[in-house]
Parts: sequence; structure tokens; C-alpha cells
Amino acid sequence: MRAAVFHGPADIRVEDVPDPRIERPDDALVRITHACVCGSDLWIYRGAEAWYRPGMRIGHEWMGVVEAVGPEVRTVRPGDRVIAPFAFSDGTCGFCREGLHTSCPRGGYWAGAGDGGQAEAIRCPLADGTLVRVPDLVAGDEALLRAILPLSDVMSTGHHAAVSAGVRPGTTACVVGDGAVGLCGVLAARRLGAERVIVVGHHQERLALARRLGATDVVTARGDAAAAAVAELTGGGARSVLECVGAQPAMETAIAACRDGGTVGFVGWPHGVRIDAGAQLYGRNVGVRGGVCPARAYIPELMADVLAGRLDPSPVLDLVVPLEEVARGYAAMDAREAVKAMVVTG
Amino acid sequence: MRAAVFHGPADIRVEDVPDPRIERPDDALVRITHACVCGSDLWIYRGAEAWYRPGMRIGHEWMGVVEAVGPEVRTVRPGDRVIAPFAFSDGTCGFCREGLHTSCPRGGYWAGAGDGGQAEAIRCPLADGTLVRVPDLVAGDEALLRAILPLSDVMSTGHHAAVSAGVRPGTTACVVGDGAVGLCGVLAARRLGAERVIVVGHHQERLALARRLGATDVVTARGDAAAAAVAELTGGGARSVLECVGAQPAMETAIAACRDGGTVGFVGWPHGVRIDAGAQLYGRNVGVRGGVCPARAYIPELMADVLAGRLDPSPVLDLVVPLEEVARGYAAMDAREAVKAMVVTG
Repeated sequence: MRAAVFHGPADIRVEDVPDPRIERPDDALVRITHACVCGSDLWIYRGAEAWYRPGMRIGHEWMGVVEAVGPEVRTVRPGDRVIAPFAFSDGTCGFCREGLHTSCPRGGYWAGAGDGGQAEAIRCPLADGTLVRVPDLVAGDEALLRAILPLSDVMSTGHHAAVSAGVRPGTTACVVGDGAVGLCGVLAARRLGAERVIVVGHHQERLALARRLGATDVVTARGDAAAAAVAELTGGGARSVLECVGAQPAMETAIAACRDGGTVGFVGWPHGVRIDAGAQLYGRNVGVRGGVCPARAYIPELMADVLAGRLDPSPVLDLVVPLEEVARGYAAMDAREAVKAMVVTG
Repeated sequence: MRAAVFHGPADIRVEDVPDPRIERPDDALVRITHACVCGSDLWIYRGAEAWYRPGMRIGHEWMGVVEAVGPEVRTVRPGDRVIAPFAFSDGTCGFCREGLHTSCPRGGYWAGAGDGGQAEAIRCPLADGTLVRVPDLVAGDEALLRAILPLSDVMSTGHHAAVSAGVRPGTTACVVGDGAVGLCGVLAARRLGAERVIVVGHHQERLALARRLGATDVVTARGDAAAAAVAELTGGGARSVLECVGAQPAMETAIAACRDGGTVGFVGWPHGVRIDAGAQLYGRNVGVRGGVCPARAYIPELMADVLAGRLDPSPVLDLVVPLEEVARGYAAMDAREAVKAMVVTG
């Protein structure tokens, strides 16, 4: 089959690779129909992840149709449409039962040393714990499929930022970052009842999209000036701040924009981010919470809202490329010509 | 009057200073009867606080009897016994109403550039917002007064650690540090319903006291070995960890001892503490929350429990010195011969 393979910075190729097959009794084999390029794939593309070696597969956001299952699989069967979170998990351990599937001791992440999601097919281990069935009613409804696809990562991650930041009805949230996660953070904060959602970003088109998705205010300043603008808008800072970038300046802005006693929810892999507990948190009682998103815990409730027409993250997918041209998706995102690329196969 | 004055590392002297007086209409003048030496005073004593200049007064934990009040003071009057939190605040701003009195824009801290609490008397600004009346029934009951005194800081701070770490009935808490704050953290965690309280410390006598105060397990290993021991005892780490030291190794142990998805509550002034958001928090979704304790918010509920006989932090006060000999209290704490010194005047 065909799959995207990382060969080095700015060098993603689609190549022939061995077909995946059922290897363990709890595996499922899934024919991928839709996938995405993630912001974290871009770090790899840019050569910022030293552990990512040439020859590794790539892509961890995917949806498809089950082709075959191992003898122990109970919850999905061939022909079912399924969506996967970006991490697999057994669904039965203490962490999975608590909704923290990313800490499942038997779990792991797609791509890297394993199969990637930017491919024609994938072997899914721990299928019962990992895959979520998409109801048959969506068959052929491409708009609806495109609204469900972001639940595999980016929409769930925006939701995790909002949950981690403690967004509640009637509160004010501030979203730092106008990328795909930040835009989904806007949707998530509104969905959880935030009355006011302030977005800090620098790209006019994305900020305009943020407004369409529910942002009430935008701040285009940077650093301390951005935090000061949020403080001015809110009379002292936002109670919940969603750090949706994963870089030192964004974390600093997020903490500074947070109201004393409030919480920063962070969800982007924090590249080299250090927090000074004394200077940044202590005197103001600002909390920091978040991490890798347990998307598996969130997909069912978010999918219910998508199916009911109450949630639509599809606007973040502003470029569609066929699998063979996935490199074009990376290049467009790298050049900030696209927010997020959707990859279609077949 | 007589008051403790900082003259340099290991040099605290009790000297004649000008008598305090009512300066503003919302001031109260309080004759101090009991005070404490705080672990944070020890950092000053050791010369670790560069901003603390010779000639500055010291002491921020105190209790006494009101001698006079300004014309605007409504809630206390001469003759009332009162206890003060270690920060003053107006009691009316948004932060005070939310219970975050340490963020009151009109508030501030005792000692340093202002009056100190290791003294015969003190001027208390914002008296209505700051002082808490101690019921008359305690008059002359030295044991009860000694149980109330720690609410000014150390017991409230231990409680703040437990609240920040999210201790709830039935959970497991881990307290890092066997100093006075850690011991109060044990009391606080039990009071909030923790079924199991594991203390990480290194001093046999203090650990024995921790057990008397409610600790169920003690860990004497350090660093990674301490975290491994907590993980072993709990099957993966404690859901709530109270970091009661304020130093880099303690924070590292606290985060490592925390269960994935759990929370570290930190309350010691974090001297040079840096948190690596990627390596320490992200993959495990460990949250960090806490800071300077809004003691004013907690004193009423904690005092009610002391008066009802449900809470007694007085065992942390294991040395009593008269004001004139306060330097002996510092020396004993510095040498770890005392957990915490109580200072009596008059």
C-alpha cells in the first residue's frame, strides 16, 4: 500500500510500504479514508524532533472503515466506519476508566516506530479500547465526516485545553494561539459556556475565522503587551487561559494574561518550555494544568454534538490534498498558507 | 517598644523602636501577645533574601489584643483578642470576595519595609479586612491560644497546599516535607478526608510527629527513590501531592510522586524552582497549582474547628521563647533543633 514516510526536514514522501495485517487477536485492520496533518507533524517536518529518524512513518489523525478484525475484537466489525484518537489504549485499565487514556500502560502513539495515519490503511492494536464507531447515518455525507475528523486530535485537544483551564458557564476565557488547536479551543470554550473568548494571535485571516467560530475579542499584540491588553479587556486577566501553541513565549503570555487565582490549560507539546514557579505562579496563585489530550475520553461526547449540529470544527480544515500529494499539505501549513490540511485517500 | 530587627545573616536583635500609632482611619493598634518564627523568616536569617536589608523589622505571624482603632474601624474594638493573617487586605475588593486576599490591590505583607510581628505591638492597616476576632471564651486558655496561633500562617498554608492539590474524601495524599508546613499539611489533608497520607521527609522525630498528626506512611528516601517509593505504596503515585518545602528537589520529587492526572499543590516560596513543562508535566497530565496562601480566607473555618476540638496544630510549636530571646528561636530552627518557635511577649 501507499503511505507517507519521513525522510528528513521538509522531505515527506508517499511510498510503497508493506500492507498492514492482523498481528494480534485484539487488532483491527482499518482502510483509511480521511487523515490530517497535525501541527505536531510540522515540528517533525521542520526537523525539530531529533528522535524522528528518516524512514519513520507519519500521521496520527485518521478515520476509516474496518476491513478485518482479530478474533478477540468485540466492539467493531468489518464495514464499520471508525475514528481513532491519536493514541491507542486498552480501555480497561485504571487510567482508561478515569478518562486518562494517554496514560494507559499498554497504550501508545501512532507513527514514529509504528504505523502512520497518513496512509491507505493501518493496523490498530487494542481495537476495542481505541476505536470509536461513527454511526452509519453519516455514510456519504462528506461535510459531516469532515466535521467529525478533527475529533481524532485537534478538536479534542482544544477541548482538553478548555477543560484543563477550568472553563465554566459565564466565565471569560483567553486563547493564546490562532492555529488549528487555538481555533478549536475557541469552539470548546464557547461550548463549555464561556461568555467571552479573547484570542491572542497574529494572523488576520485566522483571527477572522476565530471570530466566526465564537471569539468575542482579538488581541494582536505580543508578549507583555498582549497580556496587558487581556488584562485591560477583562479588568485583571482571564480566569481560564488556553495555551495552544507549545512554546516559551506563548506560555509566558498565557500565564501573564491569567487572572490571579486562575488556570492556564496547556495542550501543545511544550518545546523547551520552562516555568518559573516563584516569579510566574506563586504570588498570583496561577495554576498550570494540561498535557497530552486523552482524546479517546472526549470523542463520544464531542461526536454527539457534531451529529446534533451543535459543533462543527471543519472550518479548520482549509486545504484538502490527496494522499499522493500530502507533501503539499505540509508545505502549505509550514508556509502558513493553510491552517490544517485534510488528506483523502482512494 | 521592643521589636526584632534583622541586621544581617544570623543576626536578629531585639531593640527599642518607635511605638506604633494609629496613622489612618482604618488602622488598628494591636498589642502582640504571641508570635511565631516562620520557615520563610529562616531564609532571611540565612541571608538568602537579597532584598532584605539590615534594619528591616521581621515576623509576620502574630496574635494579640486590640489597643486602639481608627474612626472608620467597625469590626474590632479595644480589648478584643485578634489574630492576623500574614498579609493584610481590604476585605472588599473582587479578589478578597473571591477568597484570594493575597491578591488584594490595597493589601501587603508584614515586616520588610513595614512593621514586624515579632514585637510588642503593631499597626494593622485595613483592620476590618484583615483582623479576625478570637472569641472571648479563649481568654486565659493558653493551650487553646497556642492551637489558634498557627492559623496566622503555617496551618492555613498547609491547608492551602491540600486545597490546591485537590485533596478530597477518600483520596491518597502525599506530603513532601516534614517541616512545620508539611506537618500542618498532614493535618489539613486528614481534615479534608484523605484516607491515606504519605509523608516524605528525613527527620525521624518529625516523621514520628507526622504519624501522631495523622500520617499513615512515611518515606525517608530522597529524589527519584522517594518518588518510586510513593509509586510503590500507591500503585502509581498519589493523586494529590503537597509540596511543602519550596526548593527544586522537593518540587521534582512532588511532581514525580504524583499520579498521572493528579495535582501538585505548592505553598512554600519556590526559591529558584523551575518546572520543565514538557519533561515533567505534559505526558502525564500532572497539574501544578498553589502559591502564597490567602490565610485570611481560611482562618474562620479553621478556627471553628480548633474551637470545636477537631483541629490542633499546636504540636508544631515545639519551642517557646520570650521576645527578648527570639534569636534563640531562629538559631534552634536553623539547627533543626526546633520545628517552629513561638514567641511570647509581656
